[in-house]
Amino acid sequence: MVKKGAEDLRELLRLRPGERVDLSAYDTRATPAATGGKAAGLADTARIGERLAGLQERLWAAGTAGDRRRVLLVLQGMDTSGKGGTIKHVVGHLNPAGCRIHAFKAPTEEERRHDFLWRVRGVLPRPGEIGIFDRSHYEDVLIARVRQLAPPAEIESRYGLIDDFERSLAEDGVSVVKCFLHLSHEEQRTRLLRRLDRPDKRWKFSPGDIDERAVWPAYQEAYELALERCAAPYAPWYVVPADSRWYRNWAISRLLLEHLEELDPRYPASDFDVAECRERLLNEG
Amino acid sequence: MVKKGAEDLRELLRLRPGERVDLSAYDTRATPAATGGKAAGLADTARIGERLAGLQERLWAAGTAGDRRRVLLVLQGMDTSGKGGTIKHVVGHLNPAGCRIHAFKAPTEEERRHDFLWRVRGVLPRPGEIGIFDRSHYEDVLIARVRQLAPPAEIESRYGLIDDFERSLAEDGVSVVKCFLHLSHEEQRTRLLRRLDRPDKRWKFSPGDIDERAVWPAYQEAYELALERCAAPYAPWYVVPADSRWYRNWAISRLLLEHLEELDPRYPASDFDVAECRERLLNEG
Repeated sequence: MVKKGAEDLRELLRLRPGERVDLSAYDTRATPAATGGKAAGLADTARIGERLAGLQERLWAAGTAGDRRRVLLVLQGMDTSGKGGTIKHVVGHLNPAGCRIHAFKAPTEEERRHDFLWRVRGVLPRPGEIGIFDRSHYEDVLIARVRQLAPPAEIESRYGLIDDFERSLAEDGVSVVKCFLHLSHEEQRTRLLRRLDRPDKRWKFSPGDIDERAVWPAYQEAYELALERCAAPYAPWYVVPADSRWYRNWAISRLLLEHLEELDPRYPASDFDVAECRERLLNEG
Repeated sequence: MVKKGAEDLRELLRLRPGERVDLSAYDTRATPAATGGKAAGLADTARIGERLAGLQERLWAAGTAGDRRRVLLVLQGMDTSGKGGTIKHVVGHLNPAGCRIHAFKAPTEEERRHDFLWRVRGVLPRPGEIGIFDRSHYEDVLIARVRQLAPPAEIESRYGLIDDFERSLAEDGVSVVKCFLHLSHEEQRTRLLRRLDRPDKRWKFSPGDIDERAVWPAYQEAYELALERCAAPYAPWYVVPADSRWYRNWAISRLLLEHLEELDPRYPASDFDVAECRERLLNEG
């Protein structure tokens, strides 16, 4: 897989701030930097998972001693692009006690009474945690744009609000890691058909999924705008080819690893007298 | 391990409603029903983990179709008894997206302004989820009793309030599974010393842990009362010997499995025309 000393995956998959985004130029079947293919990718994902769990423990430990840093993994992508699978197979390697996972659904009535970021603020990771968003505040410039759920001017204003919000998160110690799971229209069809054909997968299907496919180009355009306008140095967007499940899991594991290694969280120093505590425990009668 | 057709582990570890509880009569090193020893126990825990994950998916799927059932695993026990380890090694087998984990700390100022169950209501599992409490509302009759954090009459009233609360949960489809991780005073000393001696574990230690040991008998008595007064048929207490980590993980996995198998959640039937959806997908041009 990625060789030691090789450019990190973030550099390969990251969108540059200000860059025009044309999603059709990104191959959904590509496997950038995963030179060993599927078998090697699966094995490497498991190894990365162990390293992630170790780094997560350090991050958590540091958090107990006042370190405010944390990670927020944002997963966005069309239906069946693998947001749920990423949580199962990537986040599944972590200690669940340190993960704060939130799946965003259509906003409730209460949520609609507030600004669109209100519901996000309530589910952010706390210091030491790894937060995972299955969909996110980006829905408010994706489905909201495609389905005209708000006036155009309001939607236009949201890109800037999102950017401000993510900058404030970064300033508060949140490493925001945004992954767009880039799936092809054809692969989505295959996956929807499989959901229909397998009785144990059928519950995930809804006829509405087919209606959404009918406006696929509008969604791609909405994604291009969102990726373009909200690709900030402090909250990067990664375009993750998602037609291969193993690659998607490997790449997102790897991106998390690189972010966590850069944070380099440390076990906190103890603020008590270890020798004295030892004595007390040994001589307590 | 447990033989097919053998009495289930719940019967072995469950406290009977009305039973007087004397914790000193329960061996913390025992390994009831785990006839194969450690190696077999570890292997069986992994196998059970896979079955748990499958049942969890069915529970979740049923939840998407209106089934209100869910599970709440309550973990209680003295410091180092393995509440965190259980989450890592047992809950770690589940899909984290379907788990709602909450660790209870000393109540915040806001929480103290409400009744003691208020903060619990906000973190309950939703339909289809498996909730896990690392400590719980029982702290309000445990540390609260030992450290006299409330007037005695108020603490006395809480057992009944907890019982009412848990009955209402059960009536709303929550399978409440309460595990007391039963650790010996001596094993706790060993574990605390290890935390002191290992630089990567030291952050988990606090000198206050030694002060709590000084009132160990008062805690055991508080536990006996809590277990005795709140062992209800609809919210059973299990006494899980916890000196062996592998046994604790095996036993709690097994208890969860038995509860989930009894629930027997099913994938929901589809409420749409599968053949028609297939056609639409195949002929969409």
